[in-house]
Amino acid sequence: MSRKPIILITNDDGITAPGISYLISIAKNLGDVFIVAPDKPQSGMGHAITINSTLRAIPTKYHNVEHEYSCSGTPVDCVKIAINQLMKHKPDIILSGINHGSNLSINVIYSGTMSAAVEGAVEGIPSIGFSLCDYAHEADFTQGKEYLEKIILSVLKNKLPKGVCLNVNIPKLTKDVIKGIKVCRQANALWEESFDERKDPYGRPYYWLTGEFKNLEKEATDTDVWANENGYITVVPTHADMTAYEAITILSENLL
Amino acid sequence: MSRKPIILITNDDGITAPGISYLISIAKNLGDVFIVAPDKPQSGMGHAITINSTLRAIPTKYHNVEHEYSCSGTPVDCVKIAINQLMKHKPDIILSGINHGSNLSINVIYSGTMSAAVEGAVEGIPSIGFSLCDYAHEADFTQGKEYLEKIILSVLKNKLPKGVCLNVNIPKLTKDVIKGIKVCRQANALWEESFDERKDPYGRPYYWLTGEFKNLEKEATDTDVWANENGYITVVPTHADMTAYEAITILSENLL
Repeated sequence: MSRKPIILITNDDGITAPGISYLISIAKNLGDVFIVAPDKPQSGMGHAITINSTLRAIPTKYHNVEHEYSCSGTPVDCVKIAINQLMKHKPDIILSGINHGSNLSINVIYSGTMSAAVEGAVEGIPSIGFSLCDYAHEADFTQGKEYLEKIILSVLKNKLPKGVCLNVNIPKLTKDVIKGIKVCRQANALWEESFDERKDPYGRPYYWLTGEFKNLEKEATDTDVWANENGYITVVPTHADMTAYEAITILSENLL
Repeated sequence: MSRKPIILITNDDGITAPGISYLISIAKNLGDVFIVAPDKPQSGMGHAITINSTLRAIPTKYHNVEHEYSCSGTPVDCVKIAINQLMKHKPDIILSGINHGSNLSINVIYSGTMSAAVEGAVEGIPSIGFSLCDYAHEADFTQGKEYLEKIILSVLKNKLPKGVCLNVNIPKLTKDVIKGIKVCRQANALWEESFDERKDPYGRPYYWLTGEFKNLEKEATDTDVWANENGYITVVPTHADMTAYEAITILSENLL
């Protein structure tokens, strides 16, 4: 590529989160950065879009970047409005994150960070969602730096298979003990939920969703959860096709 | 099953929508109905969950059913709070819909209706999302009745493969011309977006998301879009595994 690559950056923790700041600092050295990120935390928004209401996209200067917008919508809205309204040229790559917390396994369907990357893939743009497996606001994002750069440069050079984005999770480890990158599949897991029931000042019940992550295939060694627990930065190629192909035949027999 | 099946019903158009009313009228004849549905329209909410705020679940009597709750959350919240908080016993089946409008193809990732069904599948409960390809509030939901009953009864009898739910779309046709049920895969498609930019009364810009559905594989005859356009009720087995398996090898070569 003779010109500098155009890098669209978004996230789900909001435009002022430390994770996006660190990602921007890496991306500034690799191309021209264009930021469109949510104006407030949008964790757990999945692939939500704003269709019954309107959107704002306000120019800001949080990151001292020429093209930088704070958007009232979801992460997927940010990608859509960036590509279809705010940017003159389509980006060469979309980077989403770095998320404060894991997006391993089943988290991919709840994650705004990953949904932004999936939306990019649907729209034909090489896209990567980054997450650090540390929920702390003051998490240390610097430890995976060389691997992140390697992954971004590889995708800029080689692109990605059509419709595929990457789900990258960085373990909460220092760089000297991170073992490297492992390409793997999404582990089969779920959140075991319980609801914390409370009473409001008027005696009426309300609920907080709480849950515990449960890996359903602890023996498997080809999953993102296993690789993460064993010291690797995990890369799961991810797409929007949710068809359970192996079920088509049996269902055809049962239903027809 | 000696006792009557327990049927959990939700949707994304809200608890007062005609689509859910019709689904309830069918389900009442097949088992004991338990309703937990959003208190307002939640279309396009995808797999969003409420983690930064609280939830309400208020007993109501819109449908004259003993167990009926109007929930302040998303469709996925409704499933989670139903199963983990409100219901004494896990449901035998979850029915979501009937959605006012298509959830064919790529719509599955944006759809609250389908996300509720996917959540059910993740939690190990046979789940079906139903959609009628007619966005009108006064759409005629009755035309697909016999097929819907057939699909629900088949799932109650045969269950579904582990982790798999069904995405059922009913064409906007009268029952005499509906050709039957076809089990198929999710078509590769996208929404080509454009944003309608307007000015508020203070001169500041805001945006409405608008878009046009574009089928990227018009020649293929094994997709849900093709089958729907050709007069079939489509059934796509759907799961939460978004791994693009075919990309693992090539990425391993590029990244490692």
